[in-house]
Amino acid sequence: MRLAEKIIQGDIRAAARLITQIDNHDPAAVTELQRLYPLTGRAEIVGVTGPPGAGKSTLTDKLIGAYRQQGKKVAVVAVDPSSSFTSGAVLGDRIRMNRHATDPGVFIRSLGTRGHLGGLSRSTGEVVNVFDAMGYEVIIIETVGVGQDEVEIAGTAHTTLVVTVPGLGDDIQAIKAGVFEIADIFVVNKADRPEAEKAVRDLTTLVGMNHPGEDEWWQPVLKTVASTSEGVDQLVEAIGRHYAFLLDSGKLQQFEEQKSQRHLCELLQEELYRQVRTRIREEQALNGQVRAIARRELDPYTAARQILTTGAGLALAKAGQIDP
Amino acid sequence: MRLAEKIIQGDIRAAARLITQIDNHDPAAVTELQRLYPLTGRAEIVGVTGPPGAGKSTLTDKLIGAYRQQGKKVAVVAVDPSSSFTSGAVLGDRIRMNRHATDPGVFIRSLGTRGHLGGLSRSTGEVVNVFDAMGYEVIIIETVGVGQDEVEIAGTAHTTLVVTVPGLGDDIQAIKAGVFEIADIFVVNKADRPEAEKAVRDLTTLVGMNHPGEDEWWQPVLKTVASTSEGVDQLVEAIGRHYAFLLDSGKLQQFEEQKSQRHLCELLQEELYRQVRTRIREEQALNGQVRAIARRELDPYTAARQILTTGAGLALAKAGQIDP
Repeated sequence: MRLAEKIIQGDIRAAARLITQIDNHDPAAVTELQRLYPLTGRAEIVGVTGPPGAGKSTLTDKLIGAYRQQGKKVAVVAVDPSSSFTSGAVLGDRIRMNRHATDPGVFIRSLGTRGHLGGLSRSTGEVVNVFDAMGYEVIIIETVGVGQDEVEIAGTAHTTLVVTVPGLGDDIQAIKAGVFEIADIFVVNKADRPEAEKAVRDLTTLVGMNHPGEDEWWQPVLKTVASTSEGVDQLVEAIGRHYAFLLDSGKLQQFEEQKSQRHLCELLQEELYRQVRTRIREEQALNGQVRAIARRELDPYTAARQILTTGAGLALAKAGQIDP
Repeated sequence: MRLAEKIIQGDIRAAARLITQIDNHDPAAVTELQRLYPLTGRAEIVGVTGPPGAGKSTLTDKLIGAYRQQGKKVAVVAVDPSSSFTSGAVLGDRIRMNRHATDPGVFIRSLGTRGHLGGLSRSTGEVVNVFDAMGYEVIIIETVGVGQDEVEIAGTAHTTLVVTVPGLGDDIQAIKAGVFEIADIFVVNKADRPEAEKAVRDLTTLVGMNHPGEDEWWQPVLKTVASTSEGVDQLVEAIGRHYAFLLDSGKLQQFEEQKSQRHLCELLQEELYRQVRTRIREEQALNGQVRAIARRELDPYTAARQILTTGAGLALAKAGQIDP
C-alpha cells in the first residue's frame, strides 16, 4: 500500500515518514503529496509567531488543550529555522508539549531547515497538507521569529497570532513593519507582569493608527498568561471569530487562491532551477562560460542573457519537460 | 557619467547609492554591476561569522586596524539577517567600528535582508564586487550566525573565520556540522576567560578527528582577545597563509569557478522565476489553474507539470528572451 493511502487511513508512522521526506526535500514525497492534495482544505490553520522567550510553546500547548476540550483533533508543526550556532532552546520547548504525546488526537512535529532557500515555507505548507488530509481539524504552525521565514509561513496560516511579552524594551519598536502586517491577533503573553497594560495600550494605539477600513479585520490585542491558561479561552474564541470573518467576507477563498498561486510558483521555480543547475553542470559550453566568468572575461549578467536567448536557452526550454 | 564610472573613480557616494540599489534588488543595479565586473577578482575576501556575543564586530574592528597598518584599503559588509522581532544589537555593534568612519581607506556598509529568498548571499557577493572594483584590497564580510545564510555567504569569502567564545556551553556542540565545514580558521575570542584552554583543546580535537588529508588545509585554532588586540596579528598572518595556500594549491581558481557557477545559477533562477510569476499573474489559463488548485480540483504538482509540458510551457520558453 502506498504511503499516502496509509496516511489517509490515519497511520501516524507513515505520516511521520512522509514528513521526514518533505523535510529532506526528497522527490519521492511528490507522488504522495499529490494523492493527499484533494483531501486538504478542511483544517483551520493557526500561526503562532513572536520573539524567543515570548512563551509561544506554552501558549501552543494551552491552545492544544483548549481545542482538545472542544473535541477537535490538533496537529502542530514547530518550525525551527535552526541557527547554525545556537540550538537546543526550541527542542527544549518541545518537551513541554509532550504531555500530549500519548493523546492520539494530537500530532506534533518539528521541522528544521535543511538549507534549501525558501524551502522552509514550502515544506511547512506541505506538512500542513499532510495533517489536513489526515483530518486534523486545527493545525498550529509555531515559528521562532527569525527573518523572512515567519512572514512566508504566515501566508500558510488562516489566522496568525503575533505573541509578545511586556517589557521587551519598547513594545511598539519590537513589532517591526513586516510583522505588524502578518498579525491577525496580537497576544500580550505573561500579562501578569507589571508592564502588561502599557504593552496592550501601545499595540492598541498601533492598530488604531493603521485604522483598517470598515470591512477590514480589526486586529484585537489580547492578554494571556499561558502558564496559568488565563485568557486562552478568549484567544480561542478570537481565532474562531477571525476564521468566520474570512469565510463570511469571501477572503478565505482569496487566501486559498493566493496560497495556490504561491505554491505553483514555488514548484515551477524549483523545477526550472533544478534544470538550470543540471544543465550548467553538464553542458560543456556552459562550463566554458563559467570559466570565462571566473577569469573576468565575461560577466555573469551577459552570460545569463546569452544562455536564455541562444542555443542553451532552447535546450533549457526543451528540458522543460518533466517525465510524468 | 554613469554610476559605475564614478564608482571606479572612487566616488564613495556613488558606491553607496549602488549598494542601496543592490540591497533593494533594484534591477537598475545590473547594468552598473556589469560594468564593474571586469575589475573584480583582485581583493582578498575574509568572512567573519559566529554566534551573537562572540565579539565579531570588535574583532572585525581590530582586523581593519591591522590591515590599515599594512597600508591596505579595507571594506566591510556587515550582513544582518534582520529578525523581524529583534533589532538593534547588530546596528549597535556598527557604532564601535565608527572610529574608522573618517578613514578614507575604510568603507563599511550594512546589508539587511529585504525578504528576497536567497537574495542575501547574492546581494552580499555583489556588494563585495563593488568594493573589489573600487580597489579595496581586503574585504571583510561579517555575518551574525543565523541559519543557512552564513553558509552561503562563506562561499563568497576566500577565508572564513568561525569565531567562538569560551563557556558557550559545550563548545563542540556549538559548532554544528554545517559550520565546521565552512571554517578555514577557528578563533576562540575572549581567550582571557578561564575556559579558553578547554575551548581550544576541544576544537583542536575536532579538527584532528576530521583529519584533513596531506594536501588539505588544516584548520588552525587561534586565540584572540579582540578588546585588547591580543592575537590579532597572528590571526592576520594565518589569514594570509590560508590565502597563499589557496593560490599555491590551485584551489583559488576552483573557488572562483564555483562562485561564478553559483552566481550564474542565481541569475538564471531569478530571471526564470520572474518570468514564471509574471506569466502566472497574467495568463488567463493559468488563473483558471490556480483557482482549480484552490478548489482542490487540481493538485499543484500536476499543474506545474502541465504548465511545463504544454502550451504554457512553450510560452514560458519563448519568454526566456530577456531584452538586451
